[in-house]
Amino acid sequence: MNSYIKDQIELFQERNQNRGRLLVSCPDKPGIVSTISKFLFSHHANIIESSQYSTNPEDGTFFIRIEFECPNLKEKAKDMEHQFAELAKEFSFEWKLTHVYNVKKAAIFVSKELHCLLELLWEWQSGDLMADIALVISNHEEARDVVEGLNIPFYHIPANKDIRAQVEEQQLQLLKDYDIDLIVLARYMQILTPNFVAANPNKIINIHHSFLPAFIGARPYERAYGRGVKLIGATSHYVTNDLDEGPIIEQDIGRVDHRDNVDNLKKIGRSIERSVLARAVKWHLEDRIIVHQNKTIVF
Amino acid sequence: MNSYIKDQIELFQERNQNRGRLLVSCPDKPGIVSTISKFLFSHHANIIESSQYSTNPEDGTFFIRIEFECPNLKEKAKDMEHQFAELAKEFSFEWKLTHVYNVKKAAIFVSKELHCLLELLWEWQSGDLMADIALVISNHEEARDVVEGLNIPFYHIPANKDIRAQVEEQQLQLLKDYDIDLIVLARYMQILTPNFVAANPNKIINIHHSFLPAFIGARPYERAYGRGVKLIGATSHYVTNDLDEGPIIEQDIGRVDHRDNVDNLKKIGRSIERSVLARAVKWHLEDRIIVHQNKTIVF
Amino acid sequence: MNSYIKDQIELFQERNQNRGRLLVSCPDKPGIVSTISKFLFSHHANIIESSQYSTNPEDGTFFIRIEFECPNLKEKAKDMEHQFAELAKEFSFEWKLTHVYNVKKAAIFVSKELHCLLELLWEWQSGDLMADIALVISNHEEARDVVEGLNIPFYHIPANKDIRAQVEEQQLQLLKDYDIDLIVLARYMQILTPNFVAANPNKIINIHHSFLPAFIGARPYERAYGRGVKLIGATSHYVTNDLDEGPIIEQDIGRVDHRDNVDNLKKIGRSIERSVLARAVKWHLEDRIIVHQNKTIVF
Amino acid sequence: MNSYIKDQIELFQERNQNRGRLLVSCPDKPGIVSTISKFLFSHHANIIESSQYSTNPEDGTFFIRIEFECPNLKEKAKDMEHQFAELAKEFSFEWKLTHVYNVKKAAIFVSKELHCLLELLWEWQSGDLMADIALVISNHEEARDVVEGLNIPFYHIPANKDIRAQVEEQQLQLLKDYDIDLIVLARYMQILTPNFVAANPNKIINIHHSFLPAFIGARPYERAYGRGVKLIGATSHYVTNDLDEGPIIEQDIGRVDHRDNVDNLKKIGRSIERSVLARAVKWHLEDRIIVHQNKTIVF
Repeated sequence: MNSYIKDQIELFQERNQNRGRLLVSCPDKPGIVSTISKFLFSHHANIIESSQYSTNPEDGTFFIRIEFECPNLKEKAKDMEHQFAELAKEFSFEWKLTHVYNVKKAAIFVSKELHCLLELLWEWQSGDLMADIALVISNHEEARDVVEGLNIPFYHIPANKDIRAQVEEQQLQLLKDYDIDLIVLARYMQILTPNFVAANPNKIINIHHSFLPAFIGARPYERAYGRGVKLIGATSHYVTNDLDEGPIIEQDIGRVDHRDNVDNLKKIGRSIERSVLARAVKWHLEDRIIVHQNKTIVF
Repeated sequence: MNSYIKDQIELFQERNQNRGRLLVSCPDKPGIVSTISKFLFSHHANIIESSQYSTNPEDGTFFIRIEFECPNLKEKAKDMEHQFAELAKEFSFEWKLTHVYNVKKAAIFVSKELHCLLELLWEWQSGDLMADIALVISNHEEARDVVEGLNIPFYHIPANKDIRAQVEEQQLQLLKDYDIDLIVLARYMQILTPNFVAANPNKIINIHHSFLPAFIGARPYERAYGRGVKLIGATSHYVTNDLDEGPIIEQDIGRVDHRDNVDNLKKIGRSIERSVLARAVKWHLEDRIIVHQNKTIVF
Repeated sequence: MNSYIKDQIELFQERNQNRGRLLVSCPDKPGIVSTISKFLFSHHANIIESSQYSTNPEDGTFFIRIEFECPNLKEKAKDMEHQFAELAKEFSFEWKLTHVYNVKKAAIFVSKELHCLLELLWEWQSGDLMADIALVISNHEEARDVVEGLNIPFYHIPANKDIRAQVEEQQLQLLKDYDIDLIVLARYMQILTPNFVAANPNKIINIHHSFLPAFIGARPYERAYGRGVKLIGATSHYVTNDLDEGPIIEQDIGRVDHRDNVDNLKKIGRSIERSVLARAVKWHLEDRIIVHQNKTIVF
Repeated sequence: MNSYIKDQIELFQERNQNRGRLLVSCPDKPGIVSTISKFLFSHHANIIESSQYSTNPEDGTFFIRIEFECPNLKEKAKDMEHQFAELAKEFSFEWKLTHVYNVKKAAIFVSKELHCLLELLWEWQSGDLMADIALVISNHEEARDVVEGLNIPFYHIPANKDIRAQVEEQQLQLLKDYDIDLIVLARYMQILTPNFVAANPNKIINIHHSFLPAFIGARPYERAYGRGVKLIGATSHYVTNDLDEGPIIEQDIGRVDHRDNVDNLKKIGRSIERSVLARAVKWHLEDRIIVHQNKTIVF
């Protein structure tokens, strides 16, 4: 890692040594907020930002995200987790307590087109995307120079459908070695097996180059051109085993007209893909996303 | 028609008595612009605005829209048409010469939801949509009061799939009686037969409540909610016999999030539908649209 | 009021008879959320939606908006208010507890241009804007027909700067008679006196036809045209005694280009003004806005 | 220059060896299009794209941009220029005839913040911005590594207001040495003298970090935060001697809310600045912009 980025991460850690985040979802009933806020108060935590949402009565699920400052969080984090686990049983909480100090470790997968990777790397360099980008894996060589130029390990693992199993074995080993929290498919043009996906639930973010569910599958820009649409889009989503059917995190669009051929659609699309993927990754890193029934709540 | 609107139309006609528009498409080759502009110059016409576009070499089609001022256009229009028809043979032009003075006659079809109709009527009242709205046809009674309040004839023609043939016969007769140039389906929830569509090629504009080709068919908001999209949209298109597959004129989107239930999607969507349909209708009225191979060129 | 709208309001009231909203701002310190949620729980209230925000450490102000369901709220509302008032003293809360059942009473002020008024009336008719529009006041006659057509009282009070004092006296009396909660200036082209504004703090919403702070004051479209901007905008804000300097609630923009003359800017602008004002009014009606140091927090 | 980029430029030149662009503005009168298109036809040029615009009657100025294919343009370009110059006298044309083959030479000026520079370099590398980026000049060292890494000459010329004259002398000499067509101020935080500006009329493109005319001058994000705006923007414009008052080429905005502090505004703003500047530079490189009375026509 560059020393400049290392400095930035250390500065971030110093500023966030007492910052925590609590995500909870559970069956809705009165008293949940009261219980959680009492718990935090008992640890002298001050709530900085909180967002809550409940589904309609039929479903009746409650979601909350709380960001808090807690003195000596580093020392107390384990204790708090244990205590909260007790509470969680009582209320059937699904929950996650994160310490912002622990910067998430990310792996980026990329093929030949580099625009999404480059966007992530720039935002990372400028301090706008707080992750430890631990490695980049590619089935091609195009990204090597820029990645190694930033002192990030680059692994070239050629891939095709005949060798998928052994390729993924290698990849999974690397993810384990580097203790990866998040996998970003930054235009990685290989399909992942159910095995790989199952090993990383809600941890793989993909960018699809259309406003899903329009143009599921291959060659969306060509098909958008063929249909004569006036808007093209991009969609970031968690990867599930249904192709392009995972929970949508973010979407955006750009305007096109009759003068734009397929190449232009791709150019315009690249800029949409870049920002849509970067937003989704940031939200994930900031623990803003809860997945519920193949949809996302983004706080 | 209200006297206020009548006054507006008369003012518009007075201002545009010498204003013409020429739309041409043809196989591309050198000399077309030169030929057309020479023709206009020979009639002392001054080109006010012109837009031109050629497809890629493979297809090789040329499109142009010219708006011009021509002294005594009213008297000369017929002559110009005859002369241009000769030219058109030579160059295999498909073409249309319109005299802006002749305000287009529109029929609006509507069912129970009135928001698109109301938008069109407001823009019409405020002078932003220059048409002669000659009649409104509905399979329900909801729109009667507002339509008749503006002194526009309202025809209630109940409809369902069993009586489609006789319903359309009535409708076609009315369109003929009123000499209609444009049919706007402002959330008209009945399917038109191939017979009706064939009688009105590129003259029927529909609003579909999704960003096509996502959510073709019925209940798009329910399906958008089910899929957990972050954007919803609307699409205006010319009607062909393939459901929701006609040439797209305009699309737009609005942002939604996890808090929005189906009812909210519909509310947000109504506002998108209104503006998307109004823009498409305006462009049609201003002769800005050329249909080519199931796509639109919008100048 | 139309019987149709009356029915809608009654339906809304029935659905919301147990729905309350609590808005609180106070100096930040640990324990606030815990205290408030404990209070609500003690009244068997279930939190449906809650948003919280704290300013940066220097300022140290805490804001929260909670929407809750509370059995028998109608009967308990007074009691809850009294009890919460005690709590509020302890924590120096500024607060507001509203019962959604009590639909807010609004007055709309308008001059000659009707597009903003019409938008509000339409959203009101369609049930998207839940208020009791109790009266419309205008210094012109243009709006009378449409307002009276909906059975809303219309008051024509001619105004100019020489008779401002007596005009406002009349207006204030009407606002009192109708027990008005919210005044919407829907393109009302008269300046209000400090006296009038002081009598209605954070209760007057205006729409300014530019993206403030660009083009403060008169004739913004003319000046936008003169400057050659590529975007025009509109801004809704609470009225203070500094012209166009009050807390901004919402802004939006539209794209324009060199072909658009002042008239076109106005047409495009009208559509932006309509939606920006409608959004601001809705957020106010839903108690989503807290004003703090000449800015708005919109939850 | 990188060999990869060199290859791209050569490919572009090969594809565009017969491609020309003609920009004309003149007092409006009938026959101009006819004359110009006849001229092009006489050289066997085929019009690929043309856009035309006339101001309102009072001003009466005519503008046209034509892109054409002309066999053997390289050989004929000089001749065509001479002939067109004759025509131009007759009609009082202001005009420019460019040969797309001659890729424009650009200099980028930058200070410490690199996001705009990086965007331009990335779009350049990906072939989306067709220029010969001949050199980068900076008053700081931050950009050196990335610029020299792409084999672009980097000149570090420290600058402050006391040494402005000699700094600009150096800069102007470099612009002359490299035969520069376009100067891009990619967040260059020094004011240029009237002398420098006069030497480069309509050749210097700046990015201002607000939606002008809001927040002219220094620290726009701080002032936007202070005012509590709900949108922030960026503006690219040609530089004149009136600070931030030059002809606007492009503007765009992003949404912000009460949670965004000044740092967040800057982050969000960076992404807007990047795309707004890149679009303006592209349009300039494609000869799409005509400046008229401190406004731009962008075809």
